[in-house]
Amino acid sequence: MTAPVHVRELVVEWGHCDPAGIVFHPRYFEWFDACAAALFSQVSGLTKAEMLARHGAVGIPVVDAGAKFLAPCRYGDTVRVETRVSAFRRSAFDVRHLVSNGGAPAVEGWSTRVWTARDAEGRIRSQPLPAELLAQFGAAP
Amino acid sequence: MTAPVHVRELVVEWGHCDPAGIVFHPRYFEWFDACAAALFSQVSGLTKAEMLARHGAVGIPVVDAGAKFLAPCRYGDTVRVETRVSAFRRSAFDVRHLVSNGGAPAVEGWSTRVWTARDAEGRIRSQPLPAELLAQFGAAP
Amino acid sequence: MTAPVHVRELVVEWGHCDPAGIVFHPRYFEWFDACAAALFSQVSGLTKAEMLARHGAVGIPVVDAGAKFLAPCRYGDTVRVETRVSAFRRSAFDVRHLVSNGGAPAVEGWSTRVWTARDAEGRIRSQPLPAELLAQFGAAP
Amino acid sequence: MTAPVHVRELVVEWGHCDPAGIVFHPRYFEWFDACAAALFSQVSGLTKAEMLARHGAVGIPVVDAGAKFLAPCRYGDTVRVETRVSAFRRSAFDVRHLVSNGGAPAVEGWSTRVWTARDAEGRIRSQPLPAELLAQFGAAP
Repeated sequence: MTAPVHVRELVVEWGHCDPAGIVFHPRYFEWFDACAAALFSQVSGLTKAEMLARHGAVGIPVVDAGAKFLAPCRYGDTVRVETRVSAFRRSAFDVRHLVSNGGAPAVEGWSTRVWTARDAEGRIRSQPLPAELLAQFGAAP
Repeated sequence: MTAPVHVRELVVEWGHCDPAGIVFHPRYFEWFDACAAALFSQVSGLTKAEMLARHGAVGIPVVDAGAKFLAPCRYGDTVRVETRVSAFRRSAFDVRHLVSNGGAPAVEGWSTRVWTARDAEGRIRSQPLPAELLAQFGAAP
Repeated sequence: MTAPVHVRELVVEWGHCDPAGIVFHPRYFEWFDACAAALFSQVSGLTKAEMLARHGAVGIPVVDAGAKFLAPCRYGDTVRVETRVSAFRRSAFDVRHLVSNGGAPAVEGWSTRVWTARDAEGRIRSQPLPAELLAQFGAAP
Repeated sequence: MTAPVHVRELVVEWGHCDPAGIVFHPRYFEWFDACAAALFSQVSGLTKAEMLARHGAVGIPVVDAGAKFLAPCRYGDTVRVETRVSAFRRSAFDVRHLVSNGGAPAVEGWSTRVWTARDAEGRIRSQPLPAELLAQFGAAP
């Protein structure tokens, strides 16, 4: 089974770009955050809020994130962002993003996120990823 | 009594600017929002969260906002933002912002905000501004 | 002839929202800027950069902008942004934006922009809007 | 000689935060970019634009960036960002950022940047870091 992938095409806007005319790099992290959420919606068939509610979770905060900037994306370019989960662990998982521009790789990004829920005392804790969600991703539970 | 004014100096950052090398105009609205909050903290002597809690309010949402862009601010410019309340009404008030750059006016901004609290049924409603806060601003209650 | 309209549907992302869970209002001005550019691309059949180059222009800076916030848009909402030019003058024009959420108006925005080009001395000046572009918009030259 | 450090204190603003009430992580990358520029200004005694012009450079683009998020920063928190260069290589260097909140580490960030200039054919190329700048940082040339 192939790992699910989310694909978003977007046009680089004026407001994404810096005085060099290229995407200001923090913008990529905004895109990656939105694309990670969209991947989970695509796979679960639920909005992120519905997905969290269904599994009694409170969020999937980012604990680590980074990116390599291989080539600039410029104002008006149509770019493609591919997003997939590259690894599931007990309560954390890794997301990979590949931005391509005119068919060539432009940015490689990743983040590690943690599945969290409230424990019996109401504290937010990391929790094992739900089996249903792992199955939807085609990952061994 | 002179109306209280909040003054912030800030240096225009690379990430504030667009490919024309000038501040991307939505950024001014971000600055204005922060400066309005800072004015209320300065006058009340409380953080915004403390001020809201003291008066049983839930927020002061923006219902109207705008700006005139008179001259561009560029990367590296040190600009000055002056913020004051220009009018208090029963439950709403108007905030004015003046951005100057090298002593010359660059942007004039304004917003109208509403003081809100929960009513007995838990719904968020506009509420009269607290007399204590009006007094701190030197405004007639 | 009906004035051309640009329609964009977008999903409100986590990063668009503030601690109240609603879109942070400066984000609407980012959307409006992108939608105004997209309207001109749609009507001219050119990218904004190509359109400017074709007519010897250097940009269409915003000189005035504002919005009325009628109802909040929340994380995960699918909203619709309609953008049209509401008036052409000699070298300036007004853009109107209507954001609707679930069929109800949420935000009304507007901006005034100026068509600019370099004069013989290289200075950036307002210039009459090109007749070709006015014709594409169905506006009397 | 101790490596120069740039320190910025800032108050977390409403618009920096997401619906969880914590700083939306791409904002940290915006802060880091501004703090890296401020460090170079502090050490060179020049604005970034002046510094680049003095050395015939065109920019110092980010080629790699990342962060570990150890603890959340919340709306209204006063945080401290320490920025230093952790390593100089021939034409690249590494910047480290430590965000602390109430004295405890909150975020560790880094980026790798490249010193670039135009070659004889006008192409942008990585270039050796200027000896004067290395000396200002107390680094061996």
